[in-house]
Amino acid sequence: MNIEQHPFLAKTLRAIRPTDTNARQQARARLDQLATPPGALGQLLDVAEDVAAISGTITPTVRRKAIAVMAGDHGIVAAGVSKFPQAVTVEMVRNFLQGNAGINALARQVNASLMVVDVGVAGDLTALYPSAALLDRKIAAGTADFSRGPAMSRAQACRSLEIGIEVAHLLAPNTDLYATGDMGIGNTSPSSAIIACLCRCDIATVTGRGAGLDDAALQAKIAILDKALLLNQPNPDDGLDVLAKVGGFEIGAIAGLILGAAAQRRPVVLDGIISTAGAMLAASLAPNSCDYMIAGHRSAEPGHSIALKHLGKTPLLDLGLRLGEGTGAALAMNLVEAAVAILTEVATFEEAAVSQPRQSNPGSPAQ
Amino acid sequence: MNIEQHPFLAKTLRAIRPTDTNARQQARARLDQLATPPGALGQLLDVAEDVAAISGTITPTVRRKAIAVMAGDHGIVAAGVSKFPQAVTVEMVRNFLQGNAGINALARQVNASLMVVDVGVAGDLTALYPSAALLDRKIAAGTADFSRGPAMSRAQACRSLEIGIEVAHLLAPNTDLYATGDMGIGNTSPSSAIIACLCRCDIATVTGRGAGLDDAALQAKIAILDKALLLNQPNPDDGLDVLAKVGGFEIGAIAGLILGAAAQRRPVVLDGIISTAGAMLAASLAPNSCDYMIAGHRSAEPGHSIALKHLGKTPLLDLGLRLGEGTGAALAMNLVEAAVAILTEVATFEEAAVSQPRQSNPGSPAQ
Repeated sequence: MNIEQHPFLAKTLRAIRPTDTNARQQARARLDQLATPPGALGQLLDVAEDVAAISGTITPTVRRKAIAVMAGDHGIVAAGVSKFPQAVTVEMVRNFLQGNAGINALARQVNASLMVVDVGVAGDLTALYPSAALLDRKIAAGTADFSRGPAMSRAQACRSLEIGIEVAHLLAPNTDLYATGDMGIGNTSPSSAIIACLCRCDIATVTGRGAGLDDAALQAKIAILDKALLLNQPNPDDGLDVLAKVGGFEIGAIAGLILGAAAQRRPVVLDGIISTAGAMLAASLAPNSCDYMIAGHRSAEPGHSIALKHLGKTPLLDLGLRLGEGTGAALAMNLVEAAVAILTEVATFEEAAVSQPRQSNPGSPAQ
Repeated sequence: MNIEQHPFLAKTLRAIRPTDTNARQQARARLDQLATPPGALGQLLDVAEDVAAISGTITPTVRRKAIAVMAGDHGIVAAGVSKFPQAVTVEMVRNFLQGNAGINALARQVNASLMVVDVGVAGDLTALYPSAALLDRKIAAGTADFSRGPAMSRAQACRSLEIGIEVAHLLAPNTDLYATGDMGIGNTSPSSAIIACLCRCDIATVTGRGAGLDDAALQAKIAILDKALLLNQPNPDDGLDVLAKVGGFEIGAIAGLILGAAAQRRPVVLDGIISTAGAMLAASLAPNSCDYMIAGHRSAEPGHSIALKHLGKTPLLDLGLRLGEGTGAALAMNLVEAAVAILTEVATFEEAAVSQPRQSNPGSPAQ
């Protein structure tokens, strides 16, 4: 199964170009001249510069925001990696559509649209249709249990990526800034497996308590994932192989959303460990896509920090969140908008007629 | 000079009560039942609980936001503690009124009103009046140089506090959530001196580069502040004495704003080191006021972390900001609003009909 047999995916990968060095330099030149002490706006300046490079202009806009929550189930929950029953995936999708979940509250606060995509929920969602906020792209009723064999076929992996790309295109007419979100009971397990494989590190270092495992259950989860990686032998040089063998449908769709955003030269804010596992797959398939990602937050899952470091990303928030749904990314969207406002709305020393700092004067010690 | 001779201040201090333990417990009980893994919203849950306790209800609102930027000048700049000329204070106040400074961009992003108060700017601001966004409460044309004697009289210190309280009252009819901001060339120096005195720690540990001093200038600043503290001997058990001897007019007004917000049982978001020096003065004058403060961010100034620790506060953001103006507090206002949305808009397991996690089952290791 070659990527070229999937023309939509192949075309998208080819469309992802490096970000705009010229716009980056122009943005940095302006930010250096703002009527503030040099560097006084810290990490916001880096984000502003990144968004300029991504969008190819020093007057970008990130006003129209969209959060895509990719939902899917995981055969590996049968092995006992989560203390929540699988039915919660369906229940939470219903909760999203009713507007009463964490991501709904935060999407409203940040004035972002919210689209939920069934990429592979095990339960029946027909009662929830028709709904403008729920897209039916179910690949299967959950992945296979990857502690016993591959999670999905290579064709299904491609399909999950293409679904994410399609969602990026569907949202594009009303979206300047994307955010990734996820729902899927058990999905810290495939995320940890993906990160361990692509970072080439021990599964124990990247596996956490997910939705709240105790010590014994955490050790059992690590043992299950360790055996699953040994059994499947995913190839770290082949992102599609990693996704197919130890991934998840919603994680593939998240990777696809990122690829779709990057192909359109628009920034995408990453949520926690599940989204960042998707981001690592995207970076594996199209290394340039990494430059279109903004790390929204650092989650409480240990594998998340390792994955962010691997991607070279410094998260904007560190609030101990570990909910997923896109909640950390949603919160960070305001910060991205704030960073862009610094670039586009703040006057330079010259424009504001504000005096610049004195040069160092050796005869006058503290000036 | 006794505080009782300042009835407005004395009345405000008496009005500051402990926060509402009952509302805090009710909020925690609800937050524990949200249809999320326990604690999965991290620090947002703590903020939500704090706002409930502050406002005395589990359905608080923080929609209407106001940022007050207190502006004042500092005689100690004559000793060479800043590399920016003092005229920049006036120039930046003008920039605020023109809407082109960092705090303007961020206030717009967070949909907060912005009021600038001249509490003691050295330059002439008459050209800027009349303005609905600038309040004239000038106490004097800058403080005296506290490397040579007290910064201000005890009566002026009381006046600066009362100005802040007055501003809290002026804003109150349209404000659910306050934020503090500052403008004043040289004002990291009085802030560091206040923090060193009230934290009873060495001035070198709490003094930073401010708007960008080099190593030699930083050492000179530390030496100047060390001598100034020795000369003035502010009494750490008397916040008014500390404000008068080594403080600033805008720092007193920030303390007053916090006291005014606390007296009205409304939350107030702290900006960086200058605002937090004001917060330490407020806490010294009315220890209960501390519970009405929310730490917006951790600035790059070393004294800020020490002061936050002293107040028992964990900041929401850590973006390497060191601008002041209220910028870090403004950014954090969105997070406070998000935290309140979690409390007031997210369904519980029961309301959403979502299955709860299974209890630990020793026979089934990872459940």
